[in-house]
Amino acid sequence: MSEDRLRHAAALIQRIETSEPVLRAFTAYDPVRIRAEALGAPQGPLSGLSVGVKDIIDTADYATGHGSPIYDGWHPRSDASCVTLLRAAGAVCVGKTVTTEFAFFRAGATVNPYDHARTPGGSSSGSATAVAAGMIDIGLASQTAASLTRPASYCGIVGFKPSYGRYASAGIKSLAPSFDTLGTMTRDVATAALADGVLKGPVAAPTPLVAQAPKRIGLCRTPHWAEAGPATQAALEQAAGLFGAQVEVAEIDLSAFADAADLHITIMSYEAVQALAWEYTHRRDMLSPQISALLEAGRGISYATYRTALARAQDLRARMAELTPPGTVLLAPAAPDVAPLLSEGTGSPLFSRLWTLLRLPTITLPGLVSATGLPVGVQLLGPFGEDEALLAHAAWAETVLPARPVPPAVSLG
Amino acid sequence: MSEDRLRHAAALIQRIETSEPVLRAFTAYDPVRIRAEALGAPQGPLSGLSVGVKDIIDTADYATGHGSPIYDGWHPRSDASCVTLLRAAGAVCVGKTVTTEFAFFRAGATVNPYDHARTPGGSSSGSATAVAAGMIDIGLASQTAASLTRPASYCGIVGFKPSYGRYASAGIKSLAPSFDTLGTMTRDVATAALADGVLKGPVAAPTPLVAQAPKRIGLCRTPHWAEAGPATQAALEQAAGLFGAQVEVAEIDLSAFADAADLHITIMSYEAVQALAWEYTHRRDMLSPQISALLEAGRGISYATYRTALARAQDLRARMAELTPPGTVLLAPAAPDVAPLLSEGTGSPLFSRLWTLLRLPTITLPGLVSATGLPVGVQLLGPFGEDEALLAHAAWAETVLPARPVPPAVSLG
Repeated sequence: MSEDRLRHAAALIQRIETSEPVLRAFTAYDPVRIRAEALGAPQGPLSGLSVGVKDIIDTADYATGHGSPIYDGWHPRSDASCVTLLRAAGAVCVGKTVTTEFAFFRAGATVNPYDHARTPGGSSSGSATAVAAGMIDIGLASQTAASLTRPASYCGIVGFKPSYGRYASAGIKSLAPSFDTLGTMTRDVATAALADGVLKGPVAAPTPLVAQAPKRIGLCRTPHWAEAGPATQAALEQAAGLFGAQVEVAEIDLSAFADAADLHITIMSYEAVQALAWEYTHRRDMLSPQISALLEAGRGISYATYRTALARAQDLRARMAELTPPGTVLLAPAAPDVAPLLSEGTGSPLFSRLWTLLRLPTITLPGLVSATGLPVGVQLLGPFGEDEALLAHAAWAETVLPARPVPPAVSLG
Repeated sequence: MSEDRLRHAAALIQRIETSEPVLRAFTAYDPVRIRAEALGAPQGPLSGLSVGVKDIIDTADYATGHGSPIYDGWHPRSDASCVTLLRAAGAVCVGKTVTTEFAFFRAGATVNPYDHARTPGGSSSGSATAVAAGMIDIGLASQTAASLTRPASYCGIVGFKPSYGRYASAGIKSLAPSFDTLGTMTRDVATAALADGVLKGPVAAPTPLVAQAPKRIGLCRTPHWAEAGPATQAALEQAAGLFGAQVEVAEIDLSAFADAADLHITIMSYEAVQALAWEYTHRRDMLSPQISALLEAGRGISYATYRTALARAQDLRARMAELTPPGTVLLAPAAPDVAPLLSEGTGSPLFSRLWTLLRLPTITLPGLVSATGLPVGVQLLGPFGEDEALLAHAAWAETVLPARPVPPAVSLG
């Protein structure tokens, strides 16, 4: 068995070393550790699978930098709960993947595996690219605005953000605790379900996965449809057409949710100033202009305004619950368009703010492409807490959509 | 001004050095640091006030041990947000106060200032004793079950646990994120309101405090009345009598909430195993029997059971909201009885589980004593999010209750 494991580790390291110089998905990975961990890993439901850990998530062995020079070379004493659970289930932790600064907007060095001049999206940039390029099987990712859904869309992979609170947050750097949600990136729904069986509880218990068509699909063009680019509009219509051949698809009017994106910005800005109080107070000169602007905006929000936004968010959650009886799946854009050029940043979170505010489980599915061949995801959402059902519906949807486009092999020439 | 500040710091150090050898409220305090911090503190709303920081809360200068040998000598890179905010508002951080292990049950060395053979209560043991004995003005404390309300009751001080989520949790060791709530211990309501003005937002904004009688008081003997000892039963009736002379007091029937305490245990146990996954997996031999038993129990709970408990908790919150229109205050026992003997542990959390489950703001008020002269608190609770109103009602109640009993001076003889 040891030889098998070493062979497997060698192949894993080979894939990383081939792609990493170009794709730059990792802040740290260490072949010596990978081999040692592969040899010593317990047998479990994730045996044979490799994991990349977004670098806002604590690891005691690999430095944890939060995408900020303030935490250069920082070693927490313990691993985050999610890392502990994945390792205990047999997965091998390959290293830390690039995050934007504190999971906000300042980009790291990672590029999009489909077009190296484009962003992989943020903030879970490294996990998205590493999964898309086959360097890891499971990328730990997180979302406070659109940090999981958008890079999954840009990189043509499956991005699963469960219901808020489903996976343990212990040991993850917080940006806005009302929204911060841990999730996974994988190349297929089955692997997302496998990881879910480990991450949802302290004791691994398989999440059953039988592909099942939903009773109905609610098509959500959202209040921001006019801001969706041609690739996104085409992908949503195409997905609706493919699904509609098998189940009822009916448009859902979300005009009552038109203020959701602004509410999300208010709550996130306020909480970010609280969460990053130490960094703002004592290391302000080491913050980027992007996060400084967020924190300055947050400082201008009164507690009363914040509280009102929280109460309104709670109302909207109750309203959405009425619109989504069990058996319902919502279909919505995952990002405004294909991945922008690197010079344009990591893309707009607009199409996820509503859903993050509502705390619904969401899964982004690949398969569709733009006129120029770049990946464009669509997201499926389910009622709060109905994560198993959403995964089952996603497994069905995966069979209806075209196969995931495979990114070009990295060439160093 | 520097001389005033040094004199003030010297008096503070003197008070600590007199009491600490007997009361053992601190895991760490450093006269050199205290003087330096007093000299350099910015002018702000908390100028002149001293703070003790419960040792599950990160500080970069003082070691942060979480009450566990696993974290002996551990220095985080940054201060928790709450520490940053208090210091930026002019308060001087005096040191770290004793917590039980991971804010659960294994007691530290702290004793009750009214009777050194008795517990101060847990888990916020050191903050409670240090505030009661006049060693600090503000004790940072937290509650996941009864860790703030109960020691406040046992130590005859004001314990304010705001609505869940009101104070930032960044940099605080988590035990069960559905419940973990930061709060304060003080000797009067005015100081709690002063700290609230700093802790509730990233930008200090005074919490107005005008003593105001509530419209009505709901008397909650709770489903556990038969388990309340004579001191607690007498204190509640006495408080109801005093308040009833001025406002309407009517009993509230809580029989619909009879399962709340069990729901609380289910959710807390499940989440504790998630939150302490690394410690359980990699340092099990360094955990106490108390926390090991919690984690083993949590491991026996299925995700489905946990989810059902969460949904039921949500229902109970909605139900309680109907029972508590604005202007209502609830009056309830703060602990089963006076502080138990040290050999009996840190006391039962029974009388707080319901309220922690509901996430309501609560303030424990001192003034009443047992037949043997030991302090017994009562707690006032308000509707979720109505923290300012609760503080105003508490300021009124403080004038109605007898004055806080002053603990005996420490004698080393």
